[in-house]
Amino acid sequence: MWQLLQFPLCPFSRKVRLVMAEKGVPVELIREYPWERRDEFVDVNPAGETPVLIEPDHGLTLIGSQPIAEYFDEAVERSPLIIGDAAMRAEIRRLVEWFDEKLFREVVEPLMVERMRKRLVNKESPDTRVLREAMRIGNNHLDYLDYLLDHRRWVAGPAISLADFTAAAHLSVIDYLGALDWRGHRQTKDWYAVMKSRPSFRPLLGERMDVIVPPTHYDKVDF
Amino acid sequence: MWQLLQFPLCPFSRKVRLVMAEKGVPVELIREYPWERRDEFVDVNPAGETPVLIEPDHGLTLIGSQPIAEYFDEAVERSPLIIGDAAMRAEIRRLVEWFDEKLFREVVEPLMVERMRKRLVNKESPDTRVLREAMRIGNNHLDYLDYLLDHRRWVAGPAISLADFTAAAHLSVIDYLGALDWRGHRQTKDWYAVMKSRPSFRPLLGERMDVIVPPTHYDKVDF
Ligand SMILES: N[C@@H](CCC(=O)N[C@@H](CS)C(=O)NCC(=O)O)C(=O)O
Ligand SMILES: N[C@@H](CCC(=O)N[C@@H](CS)C(=O)NCC(=O)O)C(=O)O
Repeated sequence: MWQLLQFPLCPFSRKVRLVMAEKGVPVELIREYPWERRDEFVDVNPAGETPVLIEPDHGLTLIGSQPIAEYFDEAVERSPLIIGDAAMRAEIRRLVEWFDEKLFREVVEPLMVERMRKRLVNKESPDTRVLREAMRIGNNHLDYLDYLLDHRRWVAGPAISLADFTAAAHLSVIDYLGALDWRGHRQTKDWYAVMKSRPSFRPLLGERMDVIVPPTHYDKVDF
Repeated sequence: MWQLLQFPLCPFSRKVRLVMAEKGVPVELIREYPWERRDEFVDVNPAGETPVLIEPDHGLTLIGSQPIAEYFDEAVERSPLIIGDAAMRAEIRRLVEWFDEKLFREVVEPLMVERMRKRLVNKESPDTRVLREAMRIGNNHLDYLDYLLDHRRWVAGPAISLADFTAAAHLSVIDYLGALDWRGHRQTKDWYAVMKSRPSFRPLLGERMDVIVPPTHYDKVDF
């Protein structure tokens, strides 16, 4: 069976878990905190980052959420995720990168550092200035999602795709950290309610990171 | 004909140009300086980044080097770039991301800011501390490439792939900016000499960015 080295609040691990669940591929979760920089982990992934996916029986090691997503989309026919004509496939990959890089760097990563890392590792309190700025930019990202969903049924076009799962993975981490303010974002809120109710999403929402408690609405489909 | 919005020292634009040249797809280059944030440009790409590729006759717009590379690898059979079995394809995509994110952020981007942006835009002189640190990390990246090329014929495995063109695109920008020190990196140097001699690489090496002059060895295959 596949083994995923990950931790519950890693958005890239969540993206991989959603992809594998949609594809119907079973996976065993193994807790890995990349900031501990375990020697054996860095030997496997020189970038020292989660997620890493291992198939011990076939000697396969896949590193990074996008190589893993492309792998399963090529290998497993069920629930195709990078779909449509060439233009739509490029649009899906553009948006996946938008969420994985821009949304992550501007919003998710600073929130993870302030609300999780500082608490778990440094035993410091968060910098409220950084938190406020991340939430302000997060709100702009919700505006952009509203705009996309005003023009399309799903994030990248007429069908659900990897762009939806990637966006939802990142938003779910922001939401766990209590930093999502849904007011004024009806389109994205409706879309996220649908995402949350998918069977692939339920296990993620049930899992907890030690010490860090999510807001009560976090795992509710009706929020 | 395709039109590529780019500037000569953008490594992601270089990656796209290499891909298109290898595939034999003609392209017209249009100069775009993303830091000017032209309204019409940001309207097309909300990330405000080069490269952007447009096919006006078919109303196609492709954004970002990786979506563009995946597009041409799917659309044009000649010179396949994401190749081999599933494990090799994942390894190619892992390394492409390694160069596009890690090498870019740690080395190429700070060098571009210090040696190009500050000169062209801010009319400031570079911060030598930042330059030194970027070059130090650049040297570690060359060590890693040496290590890969000690174990494999090409960067990701037994055949040339998108990983080679991506690495070469980033290295060529570092080299243009006079920040590559090849001493002690024979494997990578030999590999780079082969990359430089490919017909797809020649046009890049002939092009100049206004005001910034590359070192004399820059466009020589023998260096
Ligand atoms: N591009 C990678 C990004 C992976 C990443 O940034 N993972 C974070 C955790 S969410 C990490 O391991 N950071 C290093 C650290 O925390 O020390 C992917 O898509 O998988
Ligand atoms: N992930 C993008 C990165 C593109 C990128 O970062 N481009 C740089 C220039 S090399 C840029 O436009 N930066 C914005 C700026 O300079 O204002 C890709 O692969 O195309």
